[in-house]
Amino acid sequence: VPVGQRSEPTLSNDSLIKRAACLVTDSTQTFLSQTTYAVIESLTEYTTAVYTLISLQQRYTALLEKMNPNEANAIWQVVIGARVQMTNLKERYLRYEASWQRAVSISEMAAEAAYQAGADEASVSVRNHIQLVQTQVSETRELALKAEAQLAAAQTEEIRRSITEDKDKSPNGGSPRISISDEEIPEAYLRED
Amino acid sequence: VPVGQRSEPTLSNDSLIKRAACLVTDSTQTFLSQTTYAVIESLTEYTTAVYTLISLQQRYTALLEKMNPNEANAIWQVVIGARVQMTNLKERYLRYEASWQRAVSISEMAAEAAYQAGADEASVSVRNHIQLVQTQVSETRELALKAEAQLAAAQTEEIRRSITEDKDKSPNGGSPRISISDEEIPEAYLRED
Repeated sequence: VPVGQRSEPTLSNDSLIKRAACLVTDSTQTFLSQTTYAVIESLTEYTTAVYTLISLQQRYTALLEKMNPNEANAIWQVVIGARVQMTNLKERYLRYEASWQRAVSISEMAAEAAYQAGADEASVSVRNHIQLVQTQVSETRELALKAEAQLAAAQTEEIRRSITEDKDKSPNGGSPRISISDEEIPEAYLRED
Repeated sequence: VPVGQRSEPTLSNDSLIKRAACLVTDSTQTFLSQTTYAVIESLTEYTTAVYTLISLQQRYTALLEKMNPNEANAIWQVVIGARVQMTNLKERYLRYEASWQRAVSISEMAAEAAYQAGADEASVSVRNHIQLVQTQVSETRELALKAEAQLAAAQTEEIRRSITEDKDKSPNGGSPRISISDEEIPEAYLRED
């Protein structure tokens, strides 16, 4: 029994596993890039939609006194459209955020597997990539939170003004007004978790 | 403001994410195959080493009475070598088992990500692959457990015999005997977790 003299296939298996672990890190980096792009793009579009809504509401309020009911209604429809658009974009963002979170988790596991397989460079590369995209997404979230805070402030101001106006004069013939409901108060959609 | 008329890049992002998720499932399947091969091969070699040790110990015991001290010592060295070999192979197996477990975890996450990205076929393919390799590894573990049980039984028998012999006659001139120590009682290395 030639114990000890047998050829060890260790090196071969180890190098194949290392190579396979590198393939995994390569593909998870692509997945991470793709989902990061989607989450940043969708979050930026959502933020833009929030500012569009703020601006439209302000314009509507400013022009309300000078418009006839038809004109007021036409602009009101645009405000409604902007609000629907904003809601859709938020849903899209949340969907991409979920797949981005999955990509981050898979990338973390891939980095660990690569490290354990001896592919240190690939492991470090993935970890750096994860840090980078987390910073990018976090910065983009800040901008969205700022926009939501402005929307909340604008709507609080609108409530205050409409209460003052209701005191001063009678309602203006059923013309549509900005309806302030609970659903418009920005929720903590973008809280970090 | 052309709200509502803007071209949605949803499809494009979605298809790119789906493609990236498929790349991840492809690479995790390679990683899973590679680690499965290593774990089964190393476990099988360990099992073979256990049987080799059992057989050598039995031959040593059977020949002990007919050998001079030099012959006994030579065979004893072979037994020692076989035991070291078995321990090394077990450590190698445990190392590959750890990377296999990581590969299973990453594959499960990749299957989930592919499913969420709409790549159902890739997702199902990975899940089937995971099930297959879990069965393969589990069957190979059964064989190793059987070998370990036989080694334990052989060593218990050896203890019983040496106690009987010690009662019957005086020790045979310092010739090496199979030393039964705690470390040789197979531990629950191969427990499922």
